[in-house]
Order: sequence, then structure tokens, then C-alpha cells
Amino acid sequence: MPLGHALDNRFAQLCGIEVPFSFDVKRALDINVRHGDFDFLFCPLMYTGYAPNKDKALTLNRQLLPYAGVNTGVTYGQWAGLVFAKISPTWLDLDSEDENVRVNAEAILKQQIEWASYLSVKGLKNMEVDSWETWNSFRMLCDHHSQLVVALDIKRVLPPENSLKRWFGEPVTAAILDTEIFLTKARGNTLYLPKRHQKLIADLFHLDTRIVISEIKVPTSAQSAAGSKSQPLLAYWSQVSNIYKQRDPVSEQERSEFYTRDILQPSLRPSRNYSHAISYDDHEKDLVKYLHYEIAISRALLERVPDERASVIATVLVVVGAGRGRLVHASLKAAERTGRKLRVYAVEKNPQTVIALDELIRANNWDNTVSVVSSDVRDWSAPERADILVSDFLGSFGDNELSPESLDAAQRFLEKDGISIPSSYTSFLQPLTAPKLYQEAKARKDILHSESACLVNLHNVARLTPSQQVFTFSHPKCSDNQSNQRYQKLEFRIPTDTGSAMVHGFAGYFNATLYKSVLFGTEPSTMTPNLNTWLPMFFPLRTPICVHRGSILEVHFWRCVDSRKVWYEWCVTSPSSSPIHNCNGRSCWMDL
Amino acid sequence: MPLGHALDNRFAQLCGIEVPFSFDVKRALDINVRHGDFDFLFCPLMYTGYAPNKDKALTLNRQLLPYAGVNTGVTYGQWAGLVFAKISPTWLDLDSEDENVRVNAEAILKQQIEWASYLSVKGLKNMEVDSWETWNSFRMLCDHHSQLVVALDIKRVLPPENSLKRWFGEPVTAAILDTEIFLTKARGNTLYLPKRHQKLIADLFHLDTRIVISEIKVPTSAQSAAGSKSQPLLAYWSQVSNIYKQRDPVSEQERSEFYTRDILQPSLRPSRNYSHAISYDDHEKDLVKYLHYEIAISRALLERVPDERASVIATVLVVVGAGRGRLVHASLKAAERTGRKLRVYAVEKNPQTVIALDELIRANNWDNTVSVVSSDVRDWSAPERADILVSDFLGSFGDNELSPESLDAAQRFLEKDGISIPSSYTSFLQPLTAPKLYQEAKARKDILHSESACLVNLHNVARLTPSQQVFTFSHPKCSDNQSNQRYQKLEFRIPTDTGSAMVHGFAGYFNATLYKSVLFGTEPSTMTPNLNTWLPMFFPLRTPICVHRGSILEVHFWRCVDSRKVWYEWCVTSPSSSPIHNCNGRSCWMDL
Repeated sequence: MPLGHALDNRFAQLCGIEVPFSFDVKRALDINVRHGDFDFLFCPLMYTGYAPNKDKALTLNRQLLPYAGVNTGVTYGQWAGLVFAKISPTWLDLDSEDENVRVNAEAILKQQIEWASYLSVKGLKNMEVDSWETWNSFRMLCDHHSQLVVALDIKRVLPPENSLKRWFGEPVTAAILDTEIFLTKARGNTLYLPKRHQKLIADLFHLDTRIVISEIKVPTSAQSAAGSKSQPLLAYWSQVSNIYKQRDPVSEQERSEFYTRDILQPSLRPSRNYSHAISYDDHEKDLVKYLHYEIAISRALLERVPDERASVIATVLVVVGAGRGRLVHASLKAAERTGRKLRVYAVEKNPQTVIALDELIRANNWDNTVSVVSSDVRDWSAPERADILVSDFLGSFGDNELSPESLDAAQRFLEKDGISIPSSYTSFLQPLTAPKLYQEAKARKDILHSESACLVNLHNVARLTPSQQVFTFSHPKCSDNQSNQRYQKLEFRIPTDTGSAMVHGFAGYFNATLYKSVLFGTEPSTMTPNLNTWLPMFFPLRTPICVHRGSILEVHFWRCVDSRKVWYEWCVTSPSSSPIHNCNGRSCWMDL
Repeated sequence: MPLGHALDNRFAQLCGIEVPFSFDVKRALDINVRHGDFDFLFCPLMYTGYAPNKDKALTLNRQLLPYAGVNTGVTYGQWAGLVFAKISPTWLDLDSEDENVRVNAEAILKQQIEWASYLSVKGLKNMEVDSWETWNSFRMLCDHHSQLVVALDIKRVLPPENSLKRWFGEPVTAAILDTEIFLTKARGNTLYLPKRHQKLIADLFHLDTRIVISEIKVPTSAQSAAGSKSQPLLAYWSQVSNIYKQRDPVSEQERSEFYTRDILQPSLRPSRNYSHAISYDDHEKDLVKYLHYEIAISRALLERVPDERASVIATVLVVVGAGRGRLVHASLKAAERTGRKLRVYAVEKNPQTVIALDELIRANNWDNTVSVVSSDVRDWSAPERADILVSDFLGSFGDNELSPESLDAAQRFLEKDGISIPSSYTSFLQPLTAPKLYQEAKARKDILHSESACLVNLHNVARLTPSQQVFTFSHPKCSDNQSNQRYQKLEFRIPTDTGSAMVHGFAGYFNATLYKSVLFGTEPSTMTPNLNTWLPMFFPLRTPICVHRGSILEVHFWRCVDSRKVWYEWCVTSPSSSPIHNCNGRSCWMDL
């Protein structure tokens, strides 16, 4: 039976059992699955004791090889769903210098794969936990084929944390737990797993990895194995099931995001193209975000207007890009909370949104305080200077929704000592192992998809180093002349205990200062909990780059601006040079 | 005037002169080109003494910068043909940490490039001889753009031979010779160049590299430079011209091959698809090849039939794939030369060719000796056993025209102690720097062209290591069971004094033993002179691989055979793994 139900996940979490080769697969299925506690069998399809004549090349005749039979009363549906095949026997030497050994091994491997494929059995390449490099080399030889997946053989001694982490970026479909890694408590006979193993298994559950419990020390004869009972393994099953049950509960938000995991979503092109109503819906649900705005505005109002003058001074506040009024609402709440008087101009250029904004204001009788301005902020002649600008053009990478350009335009009607909320924002980058994202982009076969920055709910990825700052923008600007172009060189050092790693691209985050100490952001080490508006950005590399232990990954990022658009370019120059990505914004850009 | 005429080359060999910046380009052209001895000017387009204010970002206004003017009486045709622009000034620091310096440098560089592009001037990236790595990194950042070319600045001290050789694979469009590298003979005032410089320049002529003579030590003011006379440089020009004139004369064969240099030609698919008549024409012109066959057959006849039995024994000789009769002719000449009697069966499956073959035999009255058999050798029932098989299925990579498979079929009617001519052949591989070939394949954008083995007249390539043996086939086979599949792992060590290098693919060659010591082949270190039939093969890599000094390039090659076709697969596993190329023969193969 599954370790847990599908309530909090897309699939039930399955646990299988490894059994030795058996000619009678039906019996093994009956014992372990139909009448047992396991969800599937993991077993060889070929008698493991078999060894061909080493002096003679094999003729490719399946009849001669001792295979698990198809006429065993196991239906094709059962083969497909309940049996995972293990390549056997272990003496297969595909790289032997001896031509006969190699040709035989090749013939046997090929037959097993074809046989498994005919039965629709799921095939698994069996890997050691410390052999990420072998897997990586194999994956590259196979040109990053999307159907290659990994089964991890979990040993008692685990590699260092950073080394282990690399697997979280890989398609780990199964983890094989030998019963030998379980320990027994001194008092009583209770089984338990070492802490690091528990954590690893919990992390693998996060990747929907299936578990296989295995008690095969030395391959035994087919007969004795088929006769063994699975009951003794139930105790191990319980341990694994406990780990599954003890996981943190999944939040409503996380649950709603299951289907978007590791899917590349084109990033918004704002300004000229108006957002759809549905994107406003999503953004407005973010309570944490608007609460931060309310606090920031409150603090600005308190500092700008002393208590004794609260009743005489009305602060002029311009909401730049008022949308459907959430920032107007936050501003009014801040005024109420602080007892300050406000005069609000709600500037919005999307005519559809202005209708909703207008309705909101009339419904709440805010007409006396709030003036709706249906205009692009660049074209608006403000009737008076603003004390406070409030805006919300922050993108997943900070400046990528043209906040700098929009606020430049608004600055001309801001008082010399006026305040901009947000007052600054910084973007961050972090190198990722993300083969799934690479395969997705590669499947599209064009340059556009291989160098377009996207929004991604990052899940099955490995974060190789801490993130680093890229570009910072502050408002109001001290000089009109200051350009919004930026260039930054970053050097990421791959930790020595990671070993080698593949870099498929970079995650992009941001942190923003709304006002003084009121901050929020998505940068992983300091991220604001429950801030749901922003998915991370993903800047792909057209060809993944291999970095070795302790080496430096040198990356260059540009924010480029011309008269009509803004775009990013990026490249790697060490350990090897990539092409410059998105030259002249040919694949992705933001219209001005 | 050109260094030499276009008689022995596609283009005349040009020699230019480097001059300092001048506002009056027309005057500099008049002095140096119109009334002088040089073919073009190499000069900056911008006053080299100019330096912008470092504390202020430049506004992009060309009027402000001191440019060589367009209204100088120089026509656009002259700009395009007679002026090569040099990026200036030298203080341009495009990677400066100081944002103002960087932005200014960027603006100036961009203006110069745009200005040069508007004038159709040829732009050259000015490189140091020892900075191949800088060039390589730059090329990779630009995604291997085909319009990037190199100008080598030749210094007095040259880098090691292997390091220098790498440039022979690169698009070296110009070599700048500072007059300082010329030496003066003790007696008299005669100029000369050091031996290694002479050789380098001769080698560069081979790549159609233009020469620029430069006497600019320190940039001087525009006025004094424009006023200087070019006459003193004529002595240097003569030296370079001498090197050009002393080159080996170009053979008729080489001349006929100029137009095929570095062009990818799909390799033949023999057997099912009959060759066109024109390809027979080319092959039959190869006198050296047929002379080797004649000698090999002569030796086989002498050893098989002792002098005293020459008049009684008739040797049965089967020409497998007789084509239009060149091997039949060689066999009959060998019989005549040795005084041995022959009975010849000329087996040919191409019905068109059989007509020509038949004509040849009747025209020469060979009817009594030669029987024409219009049949595929696999289907022919030989009326008697053969003493000698003569065949000519050798391809550029030895076995790639299915010689092994064709001779397997013929072996059934060969005497137990019979002789096959050729008796064995071996293929060879050699790693190449060949960016031109890579660009050609890349321009096609499909996987077929990026992993198809081709025939190439290799010219602008760098051969990075000596070649190594790959597959050997011997005939007759000792055992019927012996497979024609092959696998070989090769390890090429990049010489330490080469430095880093890019591998774009592998050249394929072959050597063949026709009979005992009668050998011929195309492997560079032992190649038979004037053997014109075979161009080298080229096995491309889908993505070029960078190898560092002294490191090992590990390559795997397979010859795969199934019931319908034969193909090669290849991959690199060190220093990094490539995909396996041409999996299952998806891009190139030979039909059985």
C-alpha cells in the first residue's frame, strides 16, 4: 500500500520491494504486492546466475537466455505498472578490452532493454550515490535524453551534504534502501534510520521519488527467493512510512503550485501590453505584500508630518500604476492608522483597469481623497508636486518590469525631498543544475527558447552556491543623467565538497527596500515568508557548462537600454566561454 | 602592387602599409597606394591622441569626436577596397571597473565600428601572436560568428612551433609586420627576416593572408604622419615579395583543387547507389594508384607461379568491382610484365559501367583472357576458384566504402591459399581545429549536417597531434565468423607547447597493404605522393571541445553493422563528454 495518500501531492507515494530473479514473476507479485504491503516489484528479468561462454561471441537468440517468462499469468498492465526491471547480471562489462566479453555484454544488455520495453516495464539505470560524475557523463553521451532517469542506491555512508544536494536537480525516480542501512535500538527491537538518511529520504519524497526496500545481499537461486516471504520487511516499510507522515504539512499555496513546478513561463512584457485581469487577481491575493506597503507608507507619513501638524498638513501621494486600487487601499489604511491626511492621485494607463479602479473608489466613498488619472505617467501633467510616490513595478528580478524607467518619468513631479516607495531594489543570481528546464528549452529547438529569461516555480533543481547581488536601483535618483544601463561581473565558487556540477542556468531573485527598514524579497537566504506574487526568474544557458570542484564560475550580466526596449544579456567566461546570450535582445526584451 | 600575380592562386597576394591616423585619408592613399607600392592602407579612423573626460559619460554625438572625414575625396569604393580600419585609441578599456571609462570606451568602439561599417571599410580585430586564448574566448562569446577574422601582429620573438601552428586553423586575414622585426646583414645594408619569420610568412601566404608593413612605433601627430613618405618601406616590401616568389610551384592537381578547399562534401553511399560516370573519370586519372596495383599483382603472380611453370599454369584472377576496366588493365599489364598466364573474371554490378567495360575488352582484343560478369559479387556463382582477388573498394577512411563486406562475399570462391589485393587496410584519425568547417555545418542548423562524416580538401585547419590507428581489416579472413563491427578508444595528448586548443572534429585517413611490401595511403606522416583519388574524411563534433595544454583527448569510435547498413558512431569522453554522434546511423550511413 502507498506510504501516504495523494491528498497533499499529485501522486500517492509508492514503496516497492527488491526481489531476486524469479522465473515465476506472478508468484513474486502475489506474495509481495497482491497479498503483501508493497506497491511494486524491483527485480532482474534474467537469471542472475547465467554466464555465457567467454570464448565465443553470442548469437542473438533470446530462447537461449534464461528469461523471466511472459506466459506466467502476469498481464501486460501488471508488467507496466508493477514491475521495475533491474539490469543484470552484475558481471556485464560493456567497456571490456576483450572483444568477446564486450560483444556478449552488449547483446545481453540490448536484449534486456528490448524485452523490458516490449513488456512496457519501467527500466531503471542503477547508480551509486557517489557516482554523480558517471551519471553526468552517461547523460551527456545520450545528449541529455529526457527519458533517462536515476535510481539511487542508498548506502550506509552518505557523501558530504553539498555532494548529495546535486541529486536534487536530477530526475531521481527511485531510491533503493538496503535493509542493512537500518539500525536497531539497544532497548527493544525497534528499527530506525540514521538522521541524515531520514532527512535524505524526506528530501527525496519532495521530488516524488519512489522507494524500494531491498534485502538482497548476495544473489541467491531463483527458487529460494520466490519462496521467501515478504512479511519480515514490513518493519522497514513502517519506518519509511513514518518519515513520509512526519513531513511538514503542505500549504494551500504550495498545493496550488504543484502543476506549475519546473515549467518555463514566459516573463511579462509590461508597459505597452496591458496585463490581463487574471494576473491582477493573482497579485492582489498577496496579503503579505500589501501589508508591507501599508507599513512602509505609515512610517513615511509619520516621519514626514509631525503629530502636532497632522490635522493641518495633507500629504500628496501619487500611486504610479494604481491597477485595481490595492495600493490606493493600502495608502488610505496607512493614513487612517497614523491619523495623517492624504491627497491621493491614482495614475493608471490601462483603460480597462481604470474602470475597476473608479468603481472601487466610488463604492468606498473615497472620492474626496482620491483622484483617478487615466494616463500613462510619462504623459501626465501633475497639478501639484508629490510628497510620496508609491509604485509596484517590481518584477521577479527587481528591475525587469521597468520600475527604473517608470519611476524616472514620475520623478519630475516629486518634491526635492520627496519619498519613493520602494526606495531601492537589488537583483540576485544563483547558478542552478536544472536538467529538466534545459530539456524543456532544448525540445523547442530554436534560439528564442534557449536564451529567453522565464519565470519558473523552481523545484527539481540544485542550487549550487549562495546567490550574489547583481543590479541595484535607488529612487529618487540623485542625478537626472544617471543611466539605467548596468553591467556586473560575478564569480561563484563551487564548494569543494560538491564535486563537479553542471550549470544549466541561473535563478534570479530580488530584494526591495520599501522604506528604510521595511524590506521584502525573494532572495532565498532572506526571503519574506508567504510572499506569493513572484516566481523566481530563470536565465538559461544554451549549452550546460561543467564546473569542477572548487573552481570559479565567472558570469557577466548586462542590463541594456535603447530607445525602444530594455533587455538583459549574459555570458559565462570561466571555466569556459559561452556565447553572449540574447544579443541585442533578439530573444527576450521589455518594450519601453 | 601585389606581391605576386593571381596565376597560381585564386587571388593576388596583397601587401598593405600601416599608417598613423590622418584627417586627410586621400593624401595618405595617394602617397602610399596610388603613387606608392602598397595595395591598401591600414589605419585608425579616429585621432589617436583624443581622450574623453574620464569623469563624465559620453553623449553619443559623432561630431564631437575627431574622425577621419568622409568628405576627403575618397570614394566609397576606395574606402571599401583600400582602407582597413584599426580600432583606436589603445587606451580603450572595455572591461574597466570604472563605469564612466567603460561606458565611454563602449561608445567610442561602437561608433568606430558603425562608421567603418557605413564606409564599408574592412574591420580587423588586432591580436597578439601569443594570445590565441583571447581570440578563442572572443570567438566563443560571439557564438563562432563567421565574419570574425584575425589580424596577427607578428613580433620579433615567436611562440613555440606548436603554439604558432594553431593559427593555421583560424581565419587569419592579415599579418602585420613591424619593420623592427627585419634584421640588417653585417656586410652591406641588406635587410632580411629571421628564418622562422620567413617560414611563418610563407605558411600564411598558403592561407591567402594579406601582409601589412608597419613602421609605427609610437603614435605621432596626424600631420607629421600624413606628410611622411612611404618610399623607405619599399625595401621591406621587397623582402616579403621575395618570400612569396620563393614558394614551391603549385602543381596542376593543387590548382584544380583550390575551389574545393575546406568545403564539406557528402561522402559516397556505395553499393545500392551506383556511382556516376564522372566519379570514375576522377578516379581513373590516378596514375600512382594503378601503378601500385600493377606492382602488387606482379609480385603476387611471381610468388604464386615459379618461372619454370609460367607457361603451363594460368592464374585465375577475379576483379571484384571491375568498374570501367582500370584494374583489369593493370592485371593484364602485370601478367605481361611477369610473363605469367592469366584467366580474368571482371565482375561488375553497375549495368552502365559493364557496357564501357565490355567495349574496352573488345577494343583491346582481351576477349580470350577476360570474361565480363554483369552481377553483384554476392549473387555470382563463380565457375572456378580464384587464386587472386583484386578489388578497389577502399574509401578515404579505408573500410568506409564497404570493402570488408564486399570481400567477405568474394571469399567463398577464393582458394584456401588465395591472395586478396589489397590484403589489409587501416584507418587513422587526427584531431583538428577547423572553425570554418564547424561554421559550415552549423549554418545548416540541423543535426544531419552537424554529425555527418564528409570528404574535405583540408586546408585552413590545424592538425593538433599525430594521427592514430583506428580499425584494421585483413583479407582473406581466417574465420567466417569474424565480425566487421569494430570499437576503438583513442587517447590523443595535446603537446604541452601547443597551449589550449579547440577541437572541431577529426580528420580520417587510411593506409593499405596491397600485397606484402606494396603499400599506399593518405595518412599524413607516410602518405604516398600524388595519390589523388582520396580526400581526407572529416568527422565533425556537434559542439567544439576545448582541450588544455598537455591534457588527454579521449575519443571512442565504433563501426556498427546491422542487416541493412554500416555506419560509424563517435564521441569524446575526456576532457568532457560529448553526445554520441550519429546514433544508430541516423545522419550518415552506407547501405549494404
